[in-house]
Amino acid sequence: MKKPDPSLLSLNTATVKKQWKLGQIIDGCARHGISGIAPWRDQVAEFGLEQTARLIKTHGLAVTGLCRGGAFTAKDWRDDNRRAIAEAHVLGAQCLVLVVGGLLAESKDLASARQRVIEGIYAILPEARQAGVPLAIEPLHPMQAAERACINTLEQALDICDALGYGVGVALDVYHVWWDPKLEEQIKRAGRERLLAYQICDWLVPTRDLLSDRGMMGDGVIDLPRIRSWVEAAGYDGFHEVEILSDRDWWKKDPDNVLATCKQRHRDSS
Amino acid sequence: MKKPDPSLLSLNTATVKKQWKLGQIIDGCARHGISGIAPWRDQVAEFGLEQTARLIKTHGLAVTGLCRGGAFTAKDWRDDNRRAIAEAHVLGAQCLVLVVGGLLAESKDLASARQRVIEGIYAILPEARQAGVPLAIEPLHPMQAAERACINTLEQALDICDALGYGVGVALDVYHVWWDPKLEEQIKRAGRERLLAYQICDWLVPTRDLLSDRGMMGDGVIDLPRIRSWVEAAGYDGFHEVEILSDRDWWKKDPDNVLATCKQRHRDSS
Repeated sequence: MKKPDPSLLSLNTATVKKQWKLGQIIDGCARHGISGIAPWRDQVAEFGLEQTARLIKTHGLAVTGLCRGGAFTAKDWRDDNRRAIAEAHVLGAQCLVLVVGGLLAESKDLASARQRVIEGIYAILPEARQAGVPLAIEPLHPMQAAERACINTLEQALDICDALGYGVGVALDVYHVWWDPKLEEQIKRAGRERLLAYQICDWLVPTRDLLSDRGMMGDGVIDLPRIRSWVEAAGYDGFHEVEILSDRDWWKKDPDNVLATCKQRHRDSS
Repeated sequence: MKKPDPSLLSLNTATVKKQWKLGQIIDGCARHGISGIAPWRDQVAEFGLEQTARLIKTHGLAVTGLCRGGAFTAKDWRDDNRRAIAEAHVLGAQCLVLVVGGLLAESKDLASARQRVIEGIYAILPEARQAGVPLAIEPLHPMQAAERACINTLEQALDICDALGYGVGVALDVYHVWWDPKLEEQIKRAGRERLLAYQICDWLVPTRDLLSDRGMMGDGVIDLPRIRSWVEAAGYDGFHEVEILSDRDWWKKDPDNVLATCKQRHRDSS
């Protein structure tokens, strides 16, 4: 299988969020020759939106996504998504990633939560289209259905895309979908138009925590080159964004070492 | 929604395996008026197959399943499944539950693992039919795809059933499938013929461990009455088997208390 183009590496800022502030992360990407970045909104808020946009522009980085909108089960979801769209516009983000939210408090009604998500995306879609910000629904692993996102398969996300029309697609994070027996088929269905972001990391065996025990590419069991080949066959030619949440390991390491490892593993194991 | 019939409660012996040996568990079921039991093979081996069969018969318990066959990625899968079928036959088990196995050692090839599972079930199916032991494929939660079972949705399991014909169905454990957006549709598809076992417990929020942090019915977020209504609508009128793996909680409690709680929660929260 052919190796990935090294210039397509992007860094999701969560990967070194415990070690560096956003300004340092942007500088770090530039220093390591990583040409894409996907920042989180809390970090952007802390560093300042305008300053973030300026520094990213100075270094000529692509913003492969802004994390995150969604959370349609939160009380202020409408205003918060409006702000997220505006921020994504200022940053020139290729998409706004939607982590849609889980069950409502005290509720066991998954079907209602899912309906609420569809209605929420429908409500914010006109503003997103007007701002030129594609909305990227991120299906999250089924183990996070209750707490974080009730959209849990690529098929389910694409059904929503089909219902809502243009301006909405998916953020495909291998960590959440690698196990899916319908993955290849649904990636093909998504096609270039719906595939707005491609995120990589690895699934560790054993996995010791449901949220923040992700592995560096090559350290787990995900067949990354194979999934990339499906994504490429579907026409996707965008960035490969590394997002590693790792309490026990990568969040404890020297961040320059983390970035160097991301580059090497992107080249050799993705 | 109507309450479940209390006489349909069954106990999967894993629920109190840390506190009691199999003989004690069988006696416990009888004492608490629980009329079904689903033993694990290691416990049966320890207590003795004939003695287990005798004691279960003495108390008039239904054997709602034998756990477990499968493990098609293990070296001796053929002989081990042959033994499992024979044991299920001796116990008069309503099915042999198949936990099919995950990835092969050192492999990232999920597609091959899945193909191996199909071929494995195909190979043992004639013996199972001859012994009158239905094989119940248990789809396991996607978080266990690498280590325990590469069959991860009800749809995937039913596709295999359709390919293999009679004598094979599914064991539906709510813990593994509750999140699935296609659950209702696929339960309907399964129908009475394919639904060989129905297992219950609950999904805790937060879940602190991927394997053994299951909750007692009512303590988590699974809408058990709703899922039961789908199962009943599909024609299933068999037992409701409680299987709770709980290192932090139920495995530490007095087992008589656990059984009493199972009875109460089955009645009130399932």
